[in-house]
Amino acid sequence: MASKPSIPKGTRDFSPAEVSKRQYIIQTIKANFEKFGFQPIETPSFENSDTLMGKYGEEGDRLIFKILNSGNFFYNKSKIELPESIEELQLNSAEKITLEQRIELNKFTGKISEKALRYDLTVPFARYVVQHQSEIEFPFKRYQIQPVWRADNPQKGRFREFFQCDADVVGSKSLWQEVELVQLYDTVFTSLGLEGVTIKINNRKILSGIAEVIGASDKLIDFTVALDKLDKIGEDGVKKEMIEKGISEDALVKVQPLFNFSGTFADKIAQLSDLLSSSEEGMKGVEELKFICDNVADLGLSTAVLDLDVTLARGLNYYTGAIFEVAAPKTVAMGSIGGGGRYDDLTGIFGLKNMSGVGISFGLDRIYLVLEELQLFPETVAATSKAIFLNFGDKEALYASKAIQKLRQENIKVELYPDNVKVGKQFQYADKRLIPFAVLVGDQEINSNSYALKNLVTGEQVSVDFEGLKKTLLG
Amino acid sequence: MASKPSIPKGTRDFSPAEVSKRQYIIQTIKANFEKFGFQPIETPSFENSDTLMGKYGEEGDRLIFKILNSGNFFYNKSKIELPESIEELQLNSAEKITLEQRIELNKFTGKISEKALRYDLTVPFARYVVQHQSEIEFPFKRYQIQPVWRADNPQKGRFREFFQCDADVVGSKSLWQEVELVQLYDTVFTSLGLEGVTIKINNRKILSGIAEVIGASDKLIDFTVALDKLDKIGEDGVKKEMIEKGISEDALVKVQPLFNFSGTFADKIAQLSDLLSSSEEGMKGVEELKFICDNVADLGLSTAVLDLDVTLARGLNYYTGAIFEVAAPKTVAMGSIGGGGRYDDLTGIFGLKNMSGVGISFGLDRIYLVLEELQLFPETVAATSKAIFLNFGDKEALYASKAIQKLRQENIKVELYPDNVKVGKQFQYADKRLIPFAVLVGDQEINSNSYALKNLVTGEQVSVDFEGLKKTLLG
Repeated sequence: MASKPSIPKGTRDFSPAEVSKRQYIIQTIKANFEKFGFQPIETPSFENSDTLMGKYGEEGDRLIFKILNSGNFFYNKSKIELPESIEELQLNSAEKITLEQRIELNKFTGKISEKALRYDLTVPFARYVVQHQSEIEFPFKRYQIQPVWRADNPQKGRFREFFQCDADVVGSKSLWQEVELVQLYDTVFTSLGLEGVTIKINNRKILSGIAEVIGASDKLIDFTVALDKLDKIGEDGVKKEMIEKGISEDALVKVQPLFNFSGTFADKIAQLSDLLSSSEEGMKGVEELKFICDNVADLGLSTAVLDLDVTLARGLNYYTGAIFEVAAPKTVAMGSIGGGGRYDDLTGIFGLKNMSGVGISFGLDRIYLVLEELQLFPETVAATSKAIFLNFGDKEALYASKAIQKLRQENIKVELYPDNVKVGKQFQYADKRLIPFAVLVGDQEINSNSYALKNLVTGEQVSVDFEGLKKTLLG
Repeated sequence: MASKPSIPKGTRDFSPAEVSKRQYIIQTIKANFEKFGFQPIETPSFENSDTLMGKYGEEGDRLIFKILNSGNFFYNKSKIELPESIEELQLNSAEKITLEQRIELNKFTGKISEKALRYDLTVPFARYVVQHQSEIEFPFKRYQIQPVWRADNPQKGRFREFFQCDADVVGSKSLWQEVELVQLYDTVFTSLGLEGVTIKINNRKILSGIAEVIGASDKLIDFTVALDKLDKIGEDGVKKEMIEKGISEDALVKVQPLFNFSGTFADKIAQLSDLLSSSEEGMKGVEELKFICDNVADLGLSTAVLDLDVTLARGLNYYTGAIFEVAAPKTVAMGSIGGGGRYDDLTGIFGLKNMSGVGISFGLDRIYLVLEELQLFPETVAATSKAIFLNFGDKEALYASKAIQKLRQENIKVELYPDNVKVGKQFQYADKRLIPFAVLVGDQEINSNSYALKNLVTGEQVSVDFEGLKKTLLG
């Protein structure tokens, strides 16, 4: 290979500084997941294709990375037929082929590729629950922190390989889970020093209620998208957009309270209660939200704010109860840094009925960017050594190694510069690595059983015995 | 999907207990890597195919998992030609196709698949070093703990997805690295409580010297394989096998000392010194081994034993200096639990010459099995909650949640049983989850601001205030 090597688009190398920061976030999330009684599981990076295909809609199927069968993939116990339209497929890019040709292509793909990379953590979790149901004690509180892969077009902040950090409970309909998940968000972000996040909450049943009231469930998304622009384009602008989308003026009168939707959580609940009084499902949603809101308020949050947001409409196809989304503090321009919700039939796709689940997810990459922007990473995150012993020859290196060995037994990160090269080069290495102390040993130190300890920040150098060395490096 | 879901052969789901144990090993290795001055990097799960292909020999190329191009893979800017022998390929399994057909198939594969899953951590590391050489301060001590994938035939202890845990130094020829890597093995296994491992060491140059002495470098592997059986089949048996393999009787006379190769490390060095006196390269190997052995002896190992093993001949194609392999204590029947060595030209494949590297690897899966067999996992490894608060209704659950919140602030893992179901079912859950304490609250406790704390191991139940609760659960 003559040219400089590179990595596939949408993927990333992580440098030592980046790995340490990512690990800091992951460890914080993990410690809190466990404090809340969640247990870790891990699933394989690739699943059988039929476990994943058809679970994420047509778009999802397209974005799943498929693994080519090993060996001669044109033969699998018997001949693998080529697509009938092979010649057209060879002559046209994906955008230009017909629906029929695409179906043929997909069928052929399924034959030469029987495994696919994990696309999210929810479907593998559902598969895990069904496969291991006899070993699991329900309700099952599991967390999972693993990479997923999507053949999305990479863009700023969107990658083809990224970590998901999920906590879900399956096998209980109790709303205490929702209460705890709000507390969990609050606890994790407080632990990370990220104060002032907004935990937005809504309920699928309230959205259904609104759809009932406006008499147009197919226009629900148009409605929430427009309503979400209230701050930007004002009541008149929103109403204009809604009417353009085909929502009737009558309907707008009925939902008028949503245009002045404000006040405390309890105020909002009261307004929704009026608005949705005619919808049984809507009122069920109000009741659920009230339970969560009341108990969260009674318990109190450390630094986060819980806010009822009726425009929150993610995951409409699978969420059946609570819907969550977390927004970073307003000082940072960033999309949501977490989300989740309740889905009443998590495992039905794999044949296990009546398993209600509820869960939340943390967006590692975005949380990283927010902490970076607000300079919230602790300085101690980096995995750098506390001191480097310079190398002046084998005799000196052996003397140094004896001290190094004892310091490591005290859990102090120290290292020996491996080569006896010019001292300037060794100092330069320490400098680039941001190592705060250098230890120099020559004949004088060996004879007096001491160490010359140089503070690389202040430049100050002192002669110390081993205890003095240890004390400074532990400090 | 009617049938019970499953996962691809050679892959594994990890239960909470398994994840916790694996994480315990990984965290121990990681903490020690960092104590020795190694820094973490991470590379993408898939690389461009040309980064990986051709780096692991023909066998390796075959075992690399290839990712199918997204969309219409029959067209990539222009028509992708089918292999000329497509019809034969469709009619014959991989074992039956000709070499020429295989080459055509590989060429076609390269066109419909441009990415491949990581096969080991060494080649991606070399790629990383070359790609980021301007940002890296050398010598670069990096560690990397990530999964790799191989389309191997799964068998006991061999998986298609498994973790590698590697520490390497690149950019220094200093033998102090080898000394430190021996100490690192000793420190990690001592930290894991796995005492009495044998760190076997050899040197590629000694093997070259032996090949020179027996005058048959192409028979080196036959020679070491036979010599390795000395314990089992005795000197006569070994010699018989060597002669059958075409090694001359003259040669056997010259290497006679290897048949009585014993004593201390220093004794063995002396014997090798005699044996290899005519081989310049062999004597260089003796000198290197002596340096490592002397310094390791001077520094001392905690629980491991360093042993010179001239039959150790792994990685002959790439190792150029030290060769390491770690054997579990003799009480456990298990292959090597670690290995490594020095390779003088790590990054040459990507165009960066003269970068010497040396590194070691830990075999996570096998270490897991050894710790399990010797019952060395600490009991505290499991991520289980310290106490569960039973659920007797919403009023009681709220009272419980207030205590739970305060306990979690003290970093105590506690949870609320989410549903107000029969108490027997709740106790059964606690039992299956191995949770040691249950907390019960009813009107009496709420009125007296107390908690009924039941030890689920002894059955003993006491009434405590919050401080008493905290004290017991912290203990």
